[in-house]
Amino acid sequence: MIEVIAFDADDTLWHNESLFQETQARLTAILDRYAPHAEVEARLAETERRNIKLFGYGIKGFTLSMVETAIEISGRRIGAEEIHEIVMMGKAMLDAPLDLMEGVEQVLGELKRRHRLLLITKGDLLDQTNKVERSGLAGHFEAVEIVTEKDSTTYRAIFSRLGYAPEIAVMVGNSLPSDVLPMLEIGGHAVHIPYRVTAVFERHEAEIAHERFHALDSLRDLPDLLRRLHRI
Amino acid sequence: MIEVIAFDADDTLWHNESLFQETQARLTAILDRYAPHAEVEARLAETERRNIKLFGYGIKGFTLSMVETAIEISGRRIGAEEIHEIVMMGKAMLDAPLDLMEGVEQVLGELKRRHRLLLITKGDLLDQTNKVERSGLAGHFEAVEIVTEKDSTTYRAIFSRLGYAPEIAVMVGNSLPSDVLPMLEIGGHAVHIPYRVTAVFERHEAEIAHERFHALDSLRDLPDLLRRLHRI
Repeated sequence: MIEVIAFDADDTLWHNESLFQETQARLTAILDRYAPHAEVEARLAETERRNIKLFGYGIKGFTLSMVETAIEISGRRIGAEEIHEIVMMGKAMLDAPLDLMEGVEQVLGELKRRHRLLLITKGDLLDQTNKVERSGLAGHFEAVEIVTEKDSTTYRAIFSRLGYAPEIAVMVGNSLPSDVLPMLEIGGHAVHIPYRVTAVFERHEAEIAHERFHALDSLRDLPDLLRRLHRI
Repeated sequence: MIEVIAFDADDTLWHNESLFQETQARLTAILDRYAPHAEVEARLAETERRNIKLFGYGIKGFTLSMVETAIEISGRRIGAEEIHEIVMMGKAMLDAPLDLMEGVEQVLGELKRRHRLLLITKGDLLDQTNKVERSGLAGHFEAVEIVTEKDSTTYRAIFSRLGYAPEIAVMVGNSLPSDVLPMLEIGGHAVHIPYRVTAVFERHEAEIAHERFHALDSLRDLPDLLRRLHRI
């Protein structure tokens, strides 16, 4: 019954949020003498929210938001040396080695024998293209879709263009608002695999009870779940 | 004979490079007391070249390169206030009203009566998506393709996916290396319409003599050219 498996990328196939969290920790250390860590974190989150429409999701926008936050929270007192360090932190993020989730290659290799696999990811086109290339996973996917917003309109358009009914497809990802809810909305299936660190804007408190919804602790459990679903 | 017309976007359908040039002029003014204007321009171009693989093409990367250049050329002496101003200049670019080339809507409206129109643009996914939306031109195009690199591989993939032979297609754009040369390479036609300001990395001195190549001064001349080609 499920022929198509679509995967989110960041924090589903490889680690991503941890890189942001580590960089944010370094920012709070740099700004230590201007404001308490919690205040820096709150101001950064506020700046990111304010900038999201202009910057979108991605490392370059995050870096500019860090610079903006540092200048504002220091009352314009921060030095050029420290701002330079923040810019270099952003560049290091863009250049960071890709850290695949445990078991990803094995799971994708197994699943592609019986299913069509898609990659549907949100974010900066160049960042995401680079990451897909560096991951070495591109060959597993029939299509790689990089989109600006993961909502029901986007999913409907992708499945329609590729000629698949959402009813025979499952979306696998770490985000309830981006991966799970819009997919259920258009009649598809969804598997939620929470990431160990969850971004502020990804937190979603509601419990989901839905016949086409499943939650897993690890990507490694996905082949088993699909086998069980096919047996029903 | 030509059924498909593909357009570049930045500096072909709307002004773009002029926004970069104006912002760069403001940067040289801010850095006036640290270095002569020509040196600032040269250092910025060098920083952009060094960062292009990490940042790609787009305003966010340009803004980060401006910040980096300002810090380095000032010998780490520039103040937070001035860096803040540079970041705000970048945000103003992202938010700038879209300035369509003269006659674009009329030309597209005329051409789409007999041809399939495509938009093929390079750059930041969110920036370009926002610009296409704000342009009000999206409805003219059968497909809008936002890509990370405009080379022969990219063009071949796009035309193949859409089911058009390059031989029945023309690419219209302001850049010889991005719009014209790769299109000629894959057997298609190309129309070059130079922009009044040309980015350093777009300059290309070679003259082109090719039976499938045409040069125009203005987009307004495109319908006439296509009529002439159909009569041959």
